[in-house]
Amino acid sequence: MAIIGTVAAEVFIPLAAMIGIMFAVFQWYVVARVPIHSHAGEDGGGKGEREKESEGEEEEDGVDYRHVEARCAEIQEAISIGARSFLVTEYKYLAVFMVGFALVIFVSLGSVRRFSTRPEPCAYDPSRLCRPAVANAAFTTVAFLLGALTSVLSGYLGMRVATFANARTALEARRGGVGRAFAVAFRSGAAMGFLLASSALLVLFAAINLFWLYYGDDWAGLYESITGYGLGGSSMALFGRVGGGIYTKAADVGADLVGKVERNIPEDDPRNPAVIADNVGDNVGDIAGMGSDLFGSYAESSCAALFVASISSFGAEHDFAAMMYPLLVSAAGIVACAATTLVATDAGEVKGVDEVAPTLKRQILASTVLMTGAVAAVSFLALPRSFTLFDFGDYKLVKNWHLFICVSAGLWAGLVIGYVTEYFTSNAYRPVQAVANSCRTGAATNVIFGLAVGYKSVIVPILAIATAIYASFRLAAMYGIAMAALGMLSTIATGLTIDAYGPISDNAGGIAEMAGMPRRVRERTDALDAAGNTTAAIGKGFAIGSAALVSLALFGAYVSRSGIRTVNVVSPRVFVGLLVGAMLPYWFSAMTMRSVGSAALKMVEEVRRQFNDIPGLADGLAAPDYATCVKISTDASLREMVAPGALVMLSPLVAGTLFGVEALAGLLAGALVSGVQVAISASNSGGAWDNAKKYIEAGATEDARALGPKGSDAHKAAVIGDTIGDPLKDTSGPSLNILIKLMAVEALVFAPFFAAHGGIVFNHL
Amino acid sequence: MAIIGTVAAEVFIPLAAMIGIMFAVFQWYVVARVPIHSHAGEDGGGKGEREKESEGEEEEDGVDYRHVEARCAEIQEAISIGARSFLVTEYKYLAVFMVGFALVIFVSLGSVRRFSTRPEPCAYDPSRLCRPAVANAAFTTVAFLLGALTSVLSGYLGMRVATFANARTALEARRGGVGRAFAVAFRSGAAMGFLLASSALLVLFAAINLFWLYYGDDWAGLYESITGYGLGGSSMALFGRVGGGIYTKAADVGADLVGKVERNIPEDDPRNPAVIADNVGDNVGDIAGMGSDLFGSYAESSCAALFVASISSFGAEHDFAAMMYPLLVSAAGIVACAATTLVATDAGEVKGVDEVAPTLKRQILASTVLMTGAVAAVSFLALPRSFTLFDFGDYKLVKNWHLFICVSAGLWAGLVIGYVTEYFTSNAYRPVQAVANSCRTGAATNVIFGLAVGYKSVIVPILAIATAIYASFRLAAMYGIAMAALGMLSTIATGLTIDAYGPISDNAGGIAEMAGMPRRVRERTDALDAAGNTTAAIGKGFAIGSAALVSLALFGAYVSRSGIRTVNVVSPRVFVGLLVGAMLPYWFSAMTMRSVGSAALKMVEEVRRQFNDIPGLADGLAAPDYATCVKISTDASLREMVAPGALVMLSPLVAGTLFGVEALAGLLAGALVSGVQVAISASNSGGAWDNAKKYIEAGATEDARALGPKGSDAHKAAVIGDTIGDPLKDTSGPSLNILIKLMAVEALVFAPFFAAHGGIVFNHL
Repeated sequence: MAIIGTVAAEVFIPLAAMIGIMFAVFQWYVVARVPIHSHAGEDGGGKGEREKESEGEEEEDGVDYRHVEARCAEIQEAISIGARSFLVTEYKYLAVFMVGFALVIFVSLGSVRRFSTRPEPCAYDPSRLCRPAVANAAFTTVAFLLGALTSVLSGYLGMRVATFANARTALEARRGGVGRAFAVAFRSGAAMGFLLASSALLVLFAAINLFWLYYGDDWAGLYESITGYGLGGSSMALFGRVGGGIYTKAADVGADLVGKVERNIPEDDPRNPAVIADNVGDNVGDIAGMGSDLFGSYAESSCAALFVASISSFGAEHDFAAMMYPLLVSAAGIVACAATTLVATDAGEVKGVDEVAPTLKRQILASTVLMTGAVAAVSFLALPRSFTLFDFGDYKLVKNWHLFICVSAGLWAGLVIGYVTEYFTSNAYRPVQAVANSCRTGAATNVIFGLAVGYKSVIVPILAIATAIYASFRLAAMYGIAMAALGMLSTIATGLTIDAYGPISDNAGGIAEMAGMPRRVRERTDALDAAGNTTAAIGKGFAIGSAALVSLALFGAYVSRSGIRTVNVVSPRVFVGLLVGAMLPYWFSAMTMRSVGSAALKMVEEVRRQFNDIPGLADGLAAPDYATCVKISTDASLREMVAPGALVMLSPLVAGTLFGVEALAGLLAGALVSGVQVAISASNSGGAWDNAKKYIEAGATEDARALGPKGSDAHKAAVIGDTIGDPLKDTSGPSLNILIKLMAVEALVFAPFFAAHGGIVFNHL
Repeated sequence: MAIIGTVAAEVFIPLAAMIGIMFAVFQWYVVARVPIHSHAGEDGGGKGEREKESEGEEEEDGVDYRHVEARCAEIQEAISIGARSFLVTEYKYLAVFMVGFALVIFVSLGSVRRFSTRPEPCAYDPSRLCRPAVANAAFTTVAFLLGALTSVLSGYLGMRVATFANARTALEARRGGVGRAFAVAFRSGAAMGFLLASSALLVLFAAINLFWLYYGDDWAGLYESITGYGLGGSSMALFGRVGGGIYTKAADVGADLVGKVERNIPEDDPRNPAVIADNVGDNVGDIAGMGSDLFGSYAESSCAALFVASISSFGAEHDFAAMMYPLLVSAAGIVACAATTLVATDAGEVKGVDEVAPTLKRQILASTVLMTGAVAAVSFLALPRSFTLFDFGDYKLVKNWHLFICVSAGLWAGLVIGYVTEYFTSNAYRPVQAVANSCRTGAATNVIFGLAVGYKSVIVPILAIATAIYASFRLAAMYGIAMAALGMLSTIATGLTIDAYGPISDNAGGIAEMAGMPRRVRERTDALDAAGNTTAAIGKGFAIGSAALVSLALFGAYVSRSGIRTVNVVSPRVFVGLLVGAMLPYWFSAMTMRSVGSAALKMVEEVRRQFNDIPGLADGLAAPDYATCVKISTDASLREMVAPGALVMLSPLVAGTLFGVEALAGLLAGALVSGVQVAISASNSGGAWDNAKKYIEAGATEDARALGPKGSDAHKAAVIGDTIGDPLKDTSGPSLNILIKLMAVEALVFAPFFAAHGGIVFNHL
């Protein structure tokens, strides 16, 4: 047996979660001490004084600071209200969906045994009696609702943190330079990251303990029900990502097409009517959507690991500490990430622009190294020396160090993905520079080269994921895969920190521009934002890589649960499923790309109308009507998220019900192997185009200056590439990883139903 | 037993092939009677006279016809010499590759039994003695060389026909209007189509009969060796498609970027130094490359069907007529297509521009209907009432009408794919019109909408293929799939006719422009070309659809031959193979897109240099240096085809040798299900952009006129989309179907080697 027992596990997990939450609150507190108004900043104490010493810039500007600060506060308020009102409206619609879908879950799972309330033989050990199917249906429904609520909470809190921090980052960039602005953005990212990681863990832990009260010894039933948590989390994430993605890109593309291309006014110029919608979009898409997404990944991989473990010897022998191994790994991850973050925020200070990217990169590396040690400790303390796992009808003997390797494989594969993504999307390396150079001959070559870079960037991440899969699959079957996924996500707090940092900096830049701060401030926020583009791409790389592993683990759990022994490619049902599944990411992308395109066209018309109809707008003499643009984005995203959402939610239900469990297995595998490629290439093409544009704008090298300046033909070509990349990298690409995860977890939750009633078409053909 | 016997089969197949060849020669003869020089046209008899009656245009032009005709002949000669010299150079390199790879085949297959020359127990019936492995190695090598030579011949003859017809089409457009120009282009396409389909059948038939002399009763050995024919055909096709694709698009993109965008001179203007290279490219890429490609598909699906049949009761009972069923279907296809073509060329005449597209569409429909009847006849005459097929270790009882359904499923799925492709790429329908409309807001929205159209166009073709697969798989396992593939390809003669028609019309337009024919002539060839764009997309749809079916059949044959019982997705080797296989199309596309991009950049530099350095070039006073541009395209394509070629040829060898037969099975399935989607979406996005541009240029509707004319902002945005689509639709997309086929047939040929020696890495892990 393992060295630490039930009690230790029961203490350590909530303790780590509480530490994480306290850490988040502490970071928030530090950010909150940055004053919005200088005169209100007296209680900021030391900070307020340091401000005065810093480079003495306030004197140079020749601008009325009171006015700038008031303007900042105003804009922040507008963005915050826009984001809140969008999310509240979105969540209202989602509440209806949640209730409806909860009903579907309850009815279909309850119907497996015709709603009988009598105990029945256990699925994996028919000699014993387990809880009735209708109870599993009820608890799955509860878990689903819990997951959905936590996901919504994650997104909402993230948005609140980000809209709280954006103006403060801009003001710090003015008052204290790059270093202090970086600290604010980074701390805010950390507040969001730790809050999300910790509350996800805490809610899951609480749910398990509460469900336990009812289930008692029926652990298979307990953890089967818990999978609803993952489904709830991911289905909210889907709508969050798709809705938020359409919102932000409709506004962004629309604002750019009229502002930059037609009117030749800078990005984020306050005269542009779509500018507030654009900045709101960053918060609801990149922050709230991404928060929900990674929460979903985390919830699903935990559920997949728990479900697989429950039918191993952990479950059979009721070894609670071993059973909690997935949660212990996550708990250790929170502590390790907190330690890493402390070093970045409180041990040293970022001094110049060129230290930003290395600091962020160092965070990922440090948390990975530290976490490897933590995983070793947890694996040797919490797991018995050896144990048996259920492996598609067979049993497999696994040693505790095997699981250490599985988790580490995921963890380090994540690092490889992160670094490769950086290489292909940062303008410090050849790929982006080649894309920028191709702008010499116009937009067409820029797009051709950008697409090629995206395609090429798929190779190494896929090989890294494949290696992690092979190693963990061989060592510990599907449990190994689930643990590799959790390994990749164990540094989620750090990942979210550096990921949220990007949109916060982006927003800060927008606020600086709109508030009329000097150009030098904008240059600082631009430098933060350029690093943020790369970290956003890295975050997406993590999200996709972990989604691939999670989906595979869920797929394995689904196959176990639905009673299939082999998923044989050379059987017509499976192959047809595989082929159609591989098509789904394309169908989905077609919908989301088109939605962004149409919404952007509407936005363009409105922006043009305002420039034509509002006298003095172009000269900055009259204020634009921001609210109408916000409404266009809101309406478009709420309307357009329905169809892609339905495609993802219905595909597994239709495939399972009409074509049976084997066809669905094929569908999941096909969507997985095809979707990963589309998602990675879309994200990285988009990232490369964005940074190629920034490379030309910044003009930091001889080569870059030859292409620029802003407004040159090469720059115009680069802007076209950037605009094309917007829906690819922020709408289609990142939504695809939810597609593959969500279909898999949905299949798992409905597996008992499909096994009982599924396949009505193929059974007759 | 079946109704027709061995003798009937032995007579009918070569007879049909001879009919096809004679039909091709007849069409060529009719085309050849069109005089290049009017005075030399006296022996054209009736044609020469009709010319005088036609619309009396010659009087109106006010141009010196002798001069125009002489110029036509000159340009035709230049294109023909360029194409010939490129193909000869390419084939020289390929000859080296062929000899090298032939050696690899012989050595690796010979090594299976250490080059022993003693007879050995048969693979599928160990109680009997079969020919030694070394004999199979030798005959496979011979078949490989034969396939490679036939493929080269197909490409070369197609190119000769096309370069013979292009100037004649242009001249007929001037002399006799759209109808007669259409007739010339269509007949030339038919000459190529029938020549290729018939010679492919004839060579295969002859090879089988010759190999039979040695193999006698060892049919499994015979048809295993014959698979080399497919490998030879497809490996040449790969280099033909990739090399030709890079050649044509480097020239096309380069010519457009300087000519249309910078210098504002029309397409195919003789002042543009890259214009000859561009027109040569159409012939080596779209004609020769595509000819080799479809020949490869045909050869492979025949080989797959024959191989699977040889281990069925046909093979065991030595029922030669039933064994020849695949070839009988193809033979019937040639006859049915000849009948359809006769109707189009000799029963009615195309009178106006708007009759072109419907006539072409009617051809596909008519040949499909006619062929369905022919398939029924062949199925009931040649096949025994029922027979048994080998089905991965089991035996399956199949009725003759089952196979009729399999072949028809493929045939009609092809029709569906053709019609859907037309819907998404023809400017008569909403999708292309929406893409054209999105040009209002610039190139970025154009690209976003075009990508979305390409993604969306995947849905129905995949469902059609999936349905065909499910039906034929259920009815007749892998033999059914192979026959469905042959069904789709049975109308290959018609398919090639309408496919080759496109580039011939395109070239005719180029020649009309360069020879200085009046604008009215150019408008006629443009109308032919616009229809040709759509038929080219349809042709690509067929090529991809049939490639999917062929690859699946080959995959099934490979699985049988390598002794795997199940290809289980939930096994680490298979899943990792699946994931990496799904990545290969992206890697391949990254290479080809980049190659086109880099070669185009070089071309741009050269064209710019000539405009700057040659005095009077821009004003048409001095002649450009066409040869240097031809050389740039030639060098680029020969150099750049090596890496993607190596990727495709080596991947199965590496996977099989290092990671074993199961990993390779996964790799093939992954590449198949992912590659099909990439290929379809790339082809159709490209087609949609091209025709959106043509839609704006033609200005046929109110809506289109609002976007135009040439040179408007919307038109410029459309040109950018068109240029981006060029490498997608003519290089990456169509090469991908060769990737999936070639990897599968290579795996099949090397299966005995992998089964004996493969998997050296995974066996130790």
